[in-house]
Amino acid sequence: MSRIPRIVILGAGYGGILSAIRLQKELNYNEADVTLVNKHDYHYITTHLHMPAAGTDNPENARVNILKLIDEFKVDFVKSTVTQIRPHEKKVILEDGTLSYDYLVIGLGGEAETFGIPGLKENALNIRSINSVRFIREHIEYQFAKYKREPDRKDYLTFVIGGAGFTGIEFIGELADRIPQLCKEFDVDPSLVKIYNIEAAPTALPGFDPELVEYAMKVLTDKGITFKIGTAIKECTPEGVLIAGDEFIKAATVVWTGGIRGNHMLDEAGFETMRGRIKVDEHLRAPQFDNIYVVGDCSIVMNDEGRPFPPTAQIAMQQGEAVAHNLIASIRGSQMKTFKFSNKGTVASLGKGQAIGIVGSRKLKGNVAAMMKKVVDMRYLYIIGGIPLVIRKGRF
Amino acid sequence: MSRIPRIVILGAGYGGILSAIRLQKELNYNEADVTLVNKHDYHYITTHLHMPAAGTDNPENARVNILKLIDEFKVDFVKSTVTQIRPHEKKVILEDGTLSYDYLVIGLGGEAETFGIPGLKENALNIRSINSVRFIREHIEYQFAKYKREPDRKDYLTFVIGGAGFTGIEFIGELADRIPQLCKEFDVDPSLVKIYNIEAAPTALPGFDPELVEYAMKVLTDKGITFKIGTAIKECTPEGVLIAGDEFIKAATVVWTGGIRGNHMLDEAGFETMRGRIKVDEHLRAPQFDNIYVVGDCSIVMNDEGRPFPPTAQIAMQQGEAVAHNLIASIRGSQMKTFKFSNKGTVASLGKGQAIGIVGSRKLKGNVAAMMKKVVDMRYLYIIGGIPLVIRKGRF
Repeated sequence: MSRIPRIVILGAGYGGILSAIRLQKELNYNEADVTLVNKHDYHYITTHLHMPAAGTDNPENARVNILKLIDEFKVDFVKSTVTQIRPHEKKVILEDGTLSYDYLVIGLGGEAETFGIPGLKENALNIRSINSVRFIREHIEYQFAKYKREPDRKDYLTFVIGGAGFTGIEFIGELADRIPQLCKEFDVDPSLVKIYNIEAAPTALPGFDPELVEYAMKVLTDKGITFKIGTAIKECTPEGVLIAGDEFIKAATVVWTGGIRGNHMLDEAGFETMRGRIKVDEHLRAPQFDNIYVVGDCSIVMNDEGRPFPPTAQIAMQQGEAVAHNLIASIRGSQMKTFKFSNKGTVASLGKGQAIGIVGSRKLKGNVAAMMKKVVDMRYLYIIGGIPLVIRKGRF
Repeated sequence: MSRIPRIVILGAGYGGILSAIRLQKELNYNEADVTLVNKHDYHYITTHLHMPAAGTDNPENARVNILKLIDEFKVDFVKSTVTQIRPHEKKVILEDGTLSYDYLVIGLGGEAETFGIPGLKENALNIRSINSVRFIREHIEYQFAKYKREPDRKDYLTFVIGGAGFTGIEFIGELADRIPQLCKEFDVDPSLVKIYNIEAAPTALPGFDPELVEYAMKVLTDKGITFKIGTAIKECTPEGVLIAGDEFIKAATVVWTGGIRGNHMLDEAGFETMRGRIKVDEHLRAPQFDNIYVVGDCSIVMNDEGRPFPPTAQIAMQQGEAVAHNLIASIRGSQMKTFKFSNKGTVASLGKGQAIGIVGSRKLKGNVAAMMKKVVDMRYLYIIGGIPLVIRKGRF
């Protein structure tokens, strides 16, 4: 073929946007056509969504206009929703059109995994996008307004958060900070508000350092959270949740953070998946398709013990950069790199001025960890948008 | 009787609070016991509620803590809800107690008059209190968040305001100002938002100067309001309103501002009422009870042509002051005053920087009228709370 290769990137999440940014930086003029497709005209910072969801920060601080991140002379941007991937035809079907590709990067993000728990899909809210967190924030405020009209309805003031992983823990930290403000604004007695964090696993933050988990639980318990750890949600109804031991918690708000799976379009496209995710090869390609790369929540990368790395922003970013390198190598016929995840550490926020984290082999907690969380956030803004973005979106 | 007379004031609205403030100023030490009863520990500025309802101002600016207005050494304050008035026993039953009185001032405020229109009471919102306007504000925001989840539901973005009297007109002026902000916040195309103002009477602002009404309609039409004047609402359902001509407007938000009646407790107490209001004598007393005064929306005062004055903040304030005078006259055996309403003029806001008004015989419109509206608001704050309150709550 004499025409230049066409690269299509689906999704402008961590993996997709990093691929695009790196490609636009490294590709020479007319070396490839790059098209980035995304449902919205903005990229959002998923690791920040727990704050606007609770209402402790403006959703604007969790998103960046894509056209501020990419150079339209080098990368085409198409705002559209992907409806179907046809890997054998090398085509992607959009809501309003079709794209052909030579190389595809799939970074469509994940979906809530409800593990078949009845009613969870229909009745629980998810922290998954700008739209969803604006909805959660408004929903929570609305419950306070409703309670003032129907003071018998204590369930309006009861909040159930399913899942004590990162998202769940970070969200309850913010929510606990937000409640006193809401109580003041709506003249509600704070002692009437109940926040339950329910986790089926035997510990909160499974896999995290036990000393730090204990610290986190103490901080959050002091903020008024009631933990029910080692307790499965058996059913979610519009009225609340039924939990192990046949206790029913009446709650007008249930937020489910208990699991992420891959994207339903991957199964529909005929890829072999595990919970909607594609187990990629060492170059981050889908098995049997050496022109299809998969990043972020749509992918599975195994660690040395043969278990999947948890899907995080950090791994997605590293994947995005690696994919850009390997795409360029394919085009130029140079050497591809084997992907190897390099864990820089993890910090979980517990609300204002509180966090826990591991950086290298150091355990951090309290204010030091909260500062580190900010550094991580800033570093990300710097990577994708340089100093100007840090200034615009960074929370100082 | 040798003990000092007991005055009980029910309601800390315009009439009640002015009575209390004037009594505490004029009464000598131990001349009377004054008790003010109110459902909330704050007085609210009803004429300001259209702003927090639309979300263009903080509800805090529409209320004042009662203990900032009364001197607790002179007036007792009871935060409670009145459930029953027993005029023959000279008793008032509260949610959590009983009060006996020698003199009673009834200023319990009005309730929405729905003129028997089916479904209006159940499905429409009212601009009547701090709780109700916080609810309306949250409800409106929630519709935008819901629309983003269900973009087929245009009814989430359709707002029906029933009634084009003062409250209706002032509310739509604010709502029209608020919509662009909400559209920006929630990424909604402003052209999808529809605001209908529906009025059964042949004109908006019935009784107001026709030239000014025309001006107001033009300002509001330019802001995107669709008027349906001379059009009755026939029914209100959870899905919207059925209007004359059998047109059904699908709308998730219906706000009813079309009428005010008196308080249901007055009928229950055996008073003779017209739409829940007591037609008072020239000293503002209930017929047959020369120890019961009635002010504000619970009262009817006739003008010289034998028609009731519209219930406004202005008349309620003047009544409150007159009642205080007459109560003191009763106690001292001095001359009572005949109440005569003195119309100082009227200004209706149409949103930011726009209003219409009549002051004396002068017609005002545009920015001048908007300034006058602020002057009126400030004047009221000054009357009840002096300069400190003007500084704290005035919108400069």
